[in-house]
Amino acid sequence: MTAAELAQLLEVQVEGDGSVVLSGGATLDAAGPEDLVFVDSRAAIAEMGATAAGCLLLRTDAQAPAGKTVIRVKEPRNAFAKAMRALLPDVRPAAGIHATATVAESAVVGEGASIGPQVVIEERVRIGAGAIVEAGSYVGRDSIVGDGCRIYANVTVYAGVEIGARTILHSGCVIGADGFGFVLENGRYEKFPQIGGVKIGADVEIGANSCVDRGALGDTLIDDGSKIDNLVHVGHNCRIGKHVVMAAQCGLSGGVRMDDYVVAGGQAGLGEKAHIGAQAVLGGQCGVLPNKTVEGGKAYWGTPARPHREYLKKLALIDKLPEILAELAQLRALATEAER
Amino acid sequence: MTAAELAQLLEVQVEGDGSVVLSGGATLDAAGPEDLVFVDSRAAIAEMGATAAGCLLLRTDAQAPAGKTVIRVKEPRNAFAKAMRALLPDVRPAAGIHATATVAESAVVGEGASIGPQVVIEERVRIGAGAIVEAGSYVGRDSIVGDGCRIYANVTVYAGVEIGARTILHSGCVIGADGFGFVLENGRYEKFPQIGGVKIGADVEIGANSCVDRGALGDTLIDDGSKIDNLVHVGHNCRIGKHVVMAAQCGLSGGVRMDDYVVAGGQAGLGEKAHIGAQAVLGGQCGVLPNKTVEGGKAYWGTPARPHREYLKKLALIDKLPEILAELAQLRALATEAER
Amino acid sequence: MTAAELAQLLEVQVEGDGSVVLSGGATLDAAGPEDLVFVDSRAAIAEMGATAAGCLLLRTDAQAPAGKTVIRVKEPRNAFAKAMRALLPDVRPAAGIHATATVAESAVVGEGASIGPQVVIEERVRIGAGAIVEAGSYVGRDSIVGDGCRIYANVTVYAGVEIGARTILHSGCVIGADGFGFVLENGRYEKFPQIGGVKIGADVEIGANSCVDRGALGDTLIDDGSKIDNLVHVGHNCRIGKHVVMAAQCGLSGGVRMDDYVVAGGQAGLGEKAHIGAQAVLGGQCGVLPNKTVEGGKAYWGTPARPHREYLKKLALIDKLPEILAELAQLRALATEAER
Repeated sequence: MTAAELAQLLEVQVEGDGSVVLSGGATLDAAGPEDLVFVDSRAAIAEMGATAAGCLLLRTDAQAPAGKTVIRVKEPRNAFAKAMRALLPDVRPAAGIHATATVAESAVVGEGASIGPQVVIEERVRIGAGAIVEAGSYVGRDSIVGDGCRIYANVTVYAGVEIGARTILHSGCVIGADGFGFVLENGRYEKFPQIGGVKIGADVEIGANSCVDRGALGDTLIDDGSKIDNLVHVGHNCRIGKHVVMAAQCGLSGGVRMDDYVVAGGQAGLGEKAHIGAQAVLGGQCGVLPNKTVEGGKAYWGTPARPHREYLKKLALIDKLPEILAELAQLRALATEAER
Repeated sequence: MTAAELAQLLEVQVEGDGSVVLSGGATLDAAGPEDLVFVDSRAAIAEMGATAAGCLLLRTDAQAPAGKTVIRVKEPRNAFAKAMRALLPDVRPAAGIHATATVAESAVVGEGASIGPQVVIEERVRIGAGAIVEAGSYVGRDSIVGDGCRIYANVTVYAGVEIGARTILHSGCVIGADGFGFVLENGRYEKFPQIGGVKIGADVEIGANSCVDRGALGDTLIDDGSKIDNLVHVGHNCRIGKHVVMAAQCGLSGGVRMDDYVVAGGQAGLGEKAHIGAQAVLGGQCGVLPNKTVEGGKAYWGTPARPHREYLKKLALIDKLPEILAELAQLRALATEAER
Repeated sequence: MTAAELAQLLEVQVEGDGSVVLSGGATLDAAGPEDLVFVDSRAAIAEMGATAAGCLLLRTDAQAPAGKTVIRVKEPRNAFAKAMRALLPDVRPAAGIHATATVAESAVVGEGASIGPQVVIEERVRIGAGAIVEAGSYVGRDSIVGDGCRIYANVTVYAGVEIGARTILHSGCVIGADGFGFVLENGRYEKFPQIGGVKIGADVEIGANSCVDRGALGDTLIDDGSKIDNLVHVGHNCRIGKHVVMAAQCGLSGGVRMDDYVVAGGQAGLGEKAHIGAQAVLGGQCGVLPNKTVEGGKAYWGTPARPHREYLKKLALIDKLPEILAELAQLRALATEAER
C-alpha cells in the first residue's frame, strides 16, 4: 500500500511523497523506510525528526518534519491501528478439518472454517463460517462458535456455551466451567447445581488463561464488544455489558453486574452481586464489597472502593499522621504549661 | 420424577398435586411447569406467587402460595441441591479408551473409566474405576487418579501425583508443577530440588486454571472435601485440611497450612508458612504475612490481616481524620487565644 | 554416590563414614539411611540428632551429632541443591518425535530433542538440540525453542517467539498471546496492532499458567536467569532484566521495566510503564502506580508502594488513631475547663 492509498483509506490528504510503499508499522526508533509510525505525544514529536520511517501519522495541528511523507489525522493512534488492520491481514490457517482433529458426527462446521490439529469437537456443536479453532482446543457438546471467531490453541469451551461472531479466545482460557457454589450438608460441602450456560456476544476478546464460569441457574452473560485481559475470573451468573474492559487478573465473584463501558483495572476484585454502573472506572487492585452498587460515570480506587478523589484525600490525610502527632504533643505542652 | 417422589427422597410430605412431573430446576422467574424452584429469602417469597414452576421448596414455616405444589424443608437451598443431583445425573462420556488417546502399556485403566480423545497417560499411571479423563488431558508417570474422579479437558497432572476418589479437576488446572524454590549461587538462581509429590484427598474440587505445586521435599497435601475455585495458586508443601474453601485467585506461598473448614475469600494472599486455624474466615484480598498464625474460628480482613471487627474500626477511624484535623485546629485556636 | 564422592563434588572433606551410599534427599524427619539432609537453622540443629539420614550437610561452625556422617559447607541449603542436581538427574522422555505429534515439514527439530504425543509444531519452527516438548504443547510458526529447553505438557507458544537455551516452561503457560491494547473508535474498541514478539533469554523458568504477552510494536523481553512463578501476567512490551524473581500471581501491565535482580512478591501489581530499579524488592500485594520509578536496592510495600520501613511506620501510626482520639478528648476537656 502506498502512503497516498493509506491517506485515501483514512479519508485525508497525504503531504510529501505519496508513492512511498508501506508494508508495516513500528515505533519511531525501530521503523524502517517501509514502516508507518504515529506521533501523538511531546516525546514522540521531539523524536520524530530522527526516524527512518517511510510515513508519519501526525495530529492535524502538528508541525511536520522536513522532507518526510506525512498524513495528518485527528487521532494518530487510532489511524495507525486502522492502517495496520488494512496493511497486515491476519495470517489464517488453511480452511478445513485437520486429519488429527476429532469432530463428532453431529457437529456442524461452517464454510471456510479451520479446525486445527488435535482439536476435539463434541456432539451437536456448531462452528460458524470462517471460524478458526486452533490446535488442541476443545469445544463441548451443544456449544455454538459464531462466524469468524478465532479460538487460539489449547482453549477449553465446556458444553452448552454460545459464542457470538468474530469473538477471540486466547490460549488457555476456559469458558463454562462449573461456578463455585456449594451447600454445607452434615459438615460436607455438596455441589449446588451449576446447570446454566454462558452466552458471549460478538466482537468480544478474552485473554489467555482467563476463566468464565457457567451460570448456576440461568446464564453468565458477556455482551458485545467487551474486552477481557489475561488471567481474569468471571464467576457464575455475572452479567457483563457491552464494551466493558477488564485488565489482567481482575476477579468477579458470582452474580456481579457491570454495565456498558465499565473499565476495571488490573487485579480489581468484586464481591458477590456487586453492581458497577455504566462507564465507571475501577482502579487497579481496588475492591468492591459484595452487594454494593457503584455509581456509573466515575472513577474509584481502594478497598473498600471509594470515589477516586476521596480516596486520594484519605491517603493524603494518612500521610499527615506524623504532623497530627506533633501538633498533639505541642498542644499537650501548652496545656500543661497553662495549668502550672 | 414426580413431586411426591421428590418429597419422599427428602423425607418430607408434599402439599398439593404430588403427581406433578419434575425434570429440572430454575430460578423463580425462568422456571417452567416441569421445574423445581426454591424459596429462601424475602425477595423470593414476594416473587413466588408469579412463578410458573411446577413445584416449590419452601421453609417449614413459610406460607404457601395458593394452588401450587409445595414441599416444605428446613433448608430449601440444600434440598434443591439434593433434588438436582437426583434429577439431573451427570452426562458421562462413553466408557473406554478413545482411539486417539495415548496410554502407556504399563498404565492401568479401571473398569468403566472413560479416557477421552487426545488424552495422554504415561507409564505406571493408575486410573480408578469409573473415572473420566476428558480430551487433551495429561497424566504424568506414576500418578494415581482415584475411582470416580472427573478430570475435565486440557488438565495437566505431573508425575507422582495422587488424587483421591470422586475428586473433580476443572479444565486448565495444573497439579504437581515444580514449586518455586531457588538458591542464589554466584549471582545466579539455581533450582532447589522439587522432588516431593502432591496428595489430594477424596471429594475435592479444583477450579479452572488453578495450580497446585508439588512439594520440594515431602508432599503438598489437600485433604478430603476441600473446594478450590479458579486461578488459585497453592505453593509447594502447603497442607490444606478437610472441607477448606478457597475462592478464586487466592494465592498460597510455600508451606502454608490451613486447618479444617477454613474459608478464604477471593484474591486473599498468604505468605510463606502462614498457619490458618480451623474455621477461620479470610476476607477477600486480605493478606496474611509469612510465618503468621491466625487463630481459628474468627473472621479476618485487610493486609496485614486483622480480626474483622478490629479492621472495620480501623477503617472507621481513618474516616475520622478530617474531624481530627478540624478538632486540632480548634484546639490550637483556643490555645493561641488563651496565650494572648 | 557415596558421601565421600559428594564431598569431593562440593570440594570439602567428609567426616565419619565416607562410604555411606546416598540416593536421594529429604527433610530431617522423613530421611532414610540413603538420604542426604541439610541443617541450616536452630530448629534443624535441635532436630538433627534424631534423623535417620545417611549424611548431614552442616555449616562449617556447627557441632556434629555423634556417630553421623557429616559434610561441612558454608551454605548447607545451596550445597544440598547442588547435591540433588548431581544425585537425581532429570527423568527425560525418549528422544525423537512421537507418532501422534504434528510437526510441519518446514520445522527443524534438533538432535536428541523429544517431541511428545499430540504436540503441534508449526511452520518454520526451530527446536534446539536436546530440547523437550511434552504432550499437547503447541509451538506457533517461526518460533524458536533453544537447546536443552523443557516445555512441559499443554504449554502454548504463539508464533514468532524466541526462547533461549535451557529455559523451562511449565504446563499451561501461554507465551506470545496478543497484548491488551485497543483504541476507542465510534464507541467500539478496535484492536491496536499487537505485532511485536517475545524474546526470552537462557535459563529462565516460567511457572504454570503464567502468561507473557507479545509486544504491540517491538518485543516483550525477559532476560537470562529470571524466574517467574505460577499465574503471573507479563503485559506487552515489558522489559525484564536478568535474574529477576516474580512470585505467584504478580501482574505487570504493559511496558513495565524491571532491572536485574528485582524480586517481586506474590500478587504484586505494577501499572503501565512502571520502572523498578535493580535489586529492588516489592512486598506481596504491593501496587506500583503507572509511570512510577521505584529506586533500586530497597524494599517496598503497600499500595501505592512506599519504602518498606516508611510503610510500616504508616501502619503503626494508623494503629495510634484510638490514642490520638483519646488525647484530643483530653485536650478538649482541659481547654473547656480553662475557659471556665
